[in-house]
Amino acid sequence: MKVLVTGVDGYSGWPLALHLLSRGHEVVGLDNFVTRRRVQEVGSWSATPIPSFPNRQKAVREVLGKELRFYRGDLGDYEFVHTLLARETPDAVVHLAEQRSAPYSMIDVHHAVATQVENLTGTLHLLYAIRDTCPKAHLVKMGTMGEYGTPNTDIPEGFFDVEFRGRKDTLPFPRQAGSWYHWSKVFDSGDVMFASKIWGLAATDVMQGVIYGIRTPEITDRRLLTRFDFDETWGTALNRFIAQAVLGLPITPYGKGEQRRGFIALEDSMQSLRLAVENPAGPGEYRVLNQFDAAYSVNELAEITARVAKEFGLSPVIEHPPDPRVEAEQHYYNPLHERLPALGYHRTRQLEDVVREIFHDLIHYRRRLEAKRHVVLPTTQWRSVDSRPALLARAPPSTPSSTDDRSEPASEGPPA
Amino acid sequence: MKVLVTGVDGYSGWPLALHLLSRGHEVVGLDNFVTRRRVQEVGSWSATPIPSFPNRQKAVREVLGKELRFYRGDLGDYEFVHTLLARETPDAVVHLAEQRSAPYSMIDVHHAVATQVENLTGTLHLLYAIRDTCPKAHLVKMGTMGEYGTPNTDIPEGFFDVEFRGRKDTLPFPRQAGSWYHWSKVFDSGDVMFASKIWGLAATDVMQGVIYGIRTPEITDRRLLTRFDFDETWGTALNRFIAQAVLGLPITPYGKGEQRRGFIALEDSMQSLRLAVENPAGPGEYRVLNQFDAAYSVNELAEITARVAKEFGLSPVIEHPPDPRVEAEQHYYNPLHERLPALGYHRTRQLEDVVREIFHDLIHYRRRLEAKRHVVLPTTQWRSVDSRPALLARAPPSTPSSTDDRSEPASEGPPA
Repeated sequence: MKVLVTGVDGYSGWPLALHLLSRGHEVVGLDNFVTRRRVQEVGSWSATPIPSFPNRQKAVREVLGKELRFYRGDLGDYEFVHTLLARETPDAVVHLAEQRSAPYSMIDVHHAVATQVENLTGTLHLLYAIRDTCPKAHLVKMGTMGEYGTPNTDIPEGFFDVEFRGRKDTLPFPRQAGSWYHWSKVFDSGDVMFASKIWGLAATDVMQGVIYGIRTPEITDRRLLTRFDFDETWGTALNRFIAQAVLGLPITPYGKGEQRRGFIALEDSMQSLRLAVENPAGPGEYRVLNQFDAAYSVNELAEITARVAKEFGLSPVIEHPPDPRVEAEQHYYNPLHERLPALGYHRTRQLEDVVREIFHDLIHYRRRLEAKRHVVLPTTQWRSVDSRPALLARAPPSTPSSTDDRSEPASEGPPA
Repeated sequence: MKVLVTGVDGYSGWPLALHLLSRGHEVVGLDNFVTRRRVQEVGSWSATPIPSFPNRQKAVREVLGKELRFYRGDLGDYEFVHTLLARETPDAVVHLAEQRSAPYSMIDVHHAVATQVENLTGTLHLLYAIRDTCPKAHLVKMGTMGEYGTPNTDIPEGFFDVEFRGRKDTLPFPRQAGSWYHWSKVFDSGDVMFASKIWGLAATDVMQGVIYGIRTPEITDRRLLTRFDFDETWGTALNRFIAQAVLGLPITPYGKGEQRRGFIALEDSMQSLRLAVENPAGPGEYRVLNQFDAAYSVNELAEITARVAKEFGLSPVIEHPPDPRVEAEQHYYNPLHERLPALGYHRTRQLEDVVREIFHDLIHYRRRLEAKRHVVLPTTQWRSVDSRPALLARAPPSTPSSTDDRSEPASEGPPA
């Protein structure tokens, strides 16, 4: 199949392209390199050095013997999106090109607006361009398990049977997101569901759990590594914990640490996305997949990190700073996830093994962590005003239209 | 109380300002006049001539003996919004300044994006500015009953008790909107609910039914009339039916005509909004009010229109063109509406009486209808591509930043 991957330069877009290429699919990538600029905006970089995109393509050619075609462009430019889809008419579009950080969206009003406007606009542009140029293309849209929040019931895959005051219907499960970013994904879900209904588009909305790991079976060469963000804004809790352990800093689960979320290994997330592509939704079908393997509490992540850290001769300490987010610190959490196994999904990786693998890579790149050790701790407060250092609070969000795609300092230099 | 009304030049903003002033409140208005330009964009105008804003203020002074203070500005400009709220520190903000037409949002991709981006951005800017300058101000946000769609169950006021797989919670009622515009209101609801939760803001989200009528008790002079839009894009179904009857055109309920919606008279909607302002939500409370009196099918609206038309010596005919929208033409519809009566709300107007009053005004302005008789029939299709006349389809949406606030042709001329 011919698959367009938007956001191909990103954390999951890059390994997805490699995985689809290795499975014999034709892959066309699209990116505007805004993630590189935005990580720089908060003073950080990827622990793994990320080559320029032409060098990434060259590595794919040399290591995998495959051609990854690429368009540089922005989903905010409708003429570009329309022209691209009319020329390529892909069988599937995997849409990963969105602002993906909750803390980034919470920095200030401008980052909140940028997050919601960019994510909504990109999705609407794709929906219209698919309708008008390749209406049979299957849209696989990256959402998040965070759309559901933490209700005191099980969480179905998108829809549930309701009985209210004696009458029944099947309705979308209520969304209660926890950041402007997570709400932007809820809004996308509404727009995709509506487009499927009125235009008969085929769509899969992926409620993605938190992904962990840097490697997949296709990544057999350091030039093919994907990003590893460890700063407070762009890194996940697990990423930050491992970085803290490597740096000899305390591991810092927020608050009580009982917040539970769904997780999946990078390799298994790529397997899931491929299965969604290879088993498309039907015309007019809006299919929701809860894409995760297991739920862990933040404390469990901290404990696993500490345990593995000791294997590497480190002496980790766990501390509990106040939770900067507004979220339930203790809650029920049981989302269902049955549709991907029905498509043939099998879990291949266990959390602790992947954590070990990450430690191995991060110790290799330890001096890149050392150079940015100040970015690991939280400064963005969900609740309060003016908690951000003044300079950053006043800096406008990086725009997709900036032109430098090699902006990550020393991105191709040696590990240290 | 001191009340900021955003969108004060619009259909409901104007009579709300008059009503609040007459009840002794201080009113500060805000508008960017984009509705005037957008009605022009589709080749139409208000059946009632709308004076320039300075002349509207003058009429308020002369007729009501009140001062309506006014800022011209755009909610898309955060510096402006922040400065305005910091200077005025209102007790309540009634937020009506949004793109309000479902057909306008469905014209093409650019109108879809403009609708969702503008509405979301304005609401986010207001939320942040309230938080940072007047955090005790009560936000009354105009939503729509259309957020809920037409589920096969009763519709509660915002939240409902769920039992799912043996566990219980109280959750937001699922939203299933029917246009990009209606989805933009769903998105606003999410953002307002979240802001209330994380910052403790007091918010009332008004699920507004369709409003009918041109007059309220404060409108005792033709210079004080509010807008009456009758074109396919900006006019409600009832407005178009009455205009059709006056023009001797067939009355055209779409499809089977069994689509049911909730309705409320302009005067009673203003009563409701005033009650919401005078009985604010508490700090951190996100209160949802279903604001309508009774549900009518489109056929019932057509029949009432035809019946009253005959009283005026007209000879109406009812026809059923295909429904250009994607919506259930026959469905259950029973939203609850108990909270406003609990605040003291009493219905004062009946649909048929208001329809009679509208006929009276429209016959007075008949020649303004005649001049625009081509704009009444639907051209925007929810389903298909390129159904819009080519010229209009290519016209970009009018922007809030245009500068002419007297753009409605002959707005102050004689009725004919």
